[in-house]
Amino acid sequence: MAVDYVKSGMVLGLGTGSTAAFAVARIGELLQNGTLKNIVGIPTSKRTEEQAASLGIPLSGLDDHPVIDLAIDGADEVDPDLNLVKGRGGALLREKMVEMASKKFVVIVDDTKLVDGLGGSGLAMPVEVVQFCWKYNSYRLQNLPEIAGCEARLRMDGDKPYVTDNSNYIIDLYFSTPIKDAQAAAKAISSLEGVVDHGLFLDMATAVIIAGKEGIEVKER
Amino acid sequence: MAVDYVKSGMVLGLGTGSTAAFAVARIGELLQNGTLKNIVGIPTSKRTEEQAASLGIPLSGLDDHPVIDLAIDGADEVDPDLNLVKGRGGALLREKMVEMASKKFVVIVDDTKLVDGLGGSGLAMPVEVVQFCWKYNSYRLQNLPEIAGCEARLRMDGDKPYVTDNSNYIIDLYFSTPIKDAQAAAKAISSLEGVVDHGLFLDMATAVIIAGKEGIEVKER
Repeated sequence: MAVDYVKSGMVLGLGTGSTAAFAVARIGELLQNGTLKNIVGIPTSKRTEEQAASLGIPLSGLDDHPVIDLAIDGADEVDPDLNLVKGRGGALLREKMVEMASKKFVVIVDDTKLVDGLGGSGLAMPVEVVQFCWKYNSYRLQNLPEIAGCEARLRMDGDKPYVTDNSNYIIDLYFSTPIKDAQAAAKAISSLEGVVDHGLFLDMATAVIIAGKEGIEVKER
Repeated sequence: MAVDYVKSGMVLGLGTGSTAAFAVARIGELLQNGTLKNIVGIPTSKRTEEQAASLGIPLSGLDDHPVIDLAIDGADEVDPDLNLVKGRGGALLREKMVEMASKKFVVIVDDTKLVDGLGGSGLAMPVEVVQFCWKYNSYRLQNLPEIAGCEARLRMDGDKPYVTDNSNYIIDLYFSTPIKDAQAAAKAISSLEGVVDHGLFLDMATAVIIAGKEGIEVKER
């Protein structure tokens, strides 16, 4: 379905996670059977890079392809305006860089990811921070008026802090009620020194493909 | 002179660089001779931490002291509104975190650091970026309309890229003419995904102490 957006000759942003992996597998198949030609893939993580390479998809990066035709990825939450929470898998910065550089960004989710407001799933909204003084930044995040009432927790990997591809930590924010103004929240979070990026992907998705029991629905911006 | 601002019982942000080192040395002296008591220092770099420890200054961090009474540091450029360029020494993120957390921030420079507009010295204005796709970010920085005409160069350490305390790279921006609107430039630079921080320290200094041939001048905001 998402692959219907893919045309021969495109530079493609390849997302990360279980849903994105299906799209990457399908693109590999269409390349191998000759339906698609001259595709260049820009992976958003080491994991996706390995999968795409194993399928014979030619790969490159933003350094050589600063403009991407289409990116395809999953999401952790989708609100009614097609704003997203992403990055629970830890690849949020690379995903955001690639997807911001894409002319079109198609998101694939199942209908359990739909929320009335971002943060509404009660699951983590990740913030990538430098390791230096992470407690201070955790304290400051939790006290931002724009996300009042959230709980901030350092993401762990066993008994050690989880470390991103960029050598940073992740502070996961948990909301008891959805974020009221996601734009204001994103701005406040980004303004803290030491915050590298966050999982709010606002005004980015051009289309969301939603799989539900009754079939498939496509919402376009 | 800067040390006149220091009182017993204060939590002090300790800057980095040759000028800040003099202030740290003087604080150590005043602690040792009993003029100052109950000082806690928050160093802005490993180097400053080592110097302060060797002088017997009790040290802590932002995690335990999220509010600092006074920070003292040097600067690379100072404009007529007391806005600064800092971070040529590479410690910009830690300096900004500590100095943003300070109720007062006193800057010490000699008069060669005074510029009509930031970027006007023709020397580097540093931007800390994640290593991933640094070329893409260098390209994007150089093409921001808010800093049009600047030249972006990756900071090197011999034949390898310079790596910050936070495992990031530094892109140094060189301006042929001063930045017209520093607030707009700071906002545009910060908005790029993968930019961790930059050397524009705006609306932060409460006082600048300027040493010149004719003596010392103090400018307060």
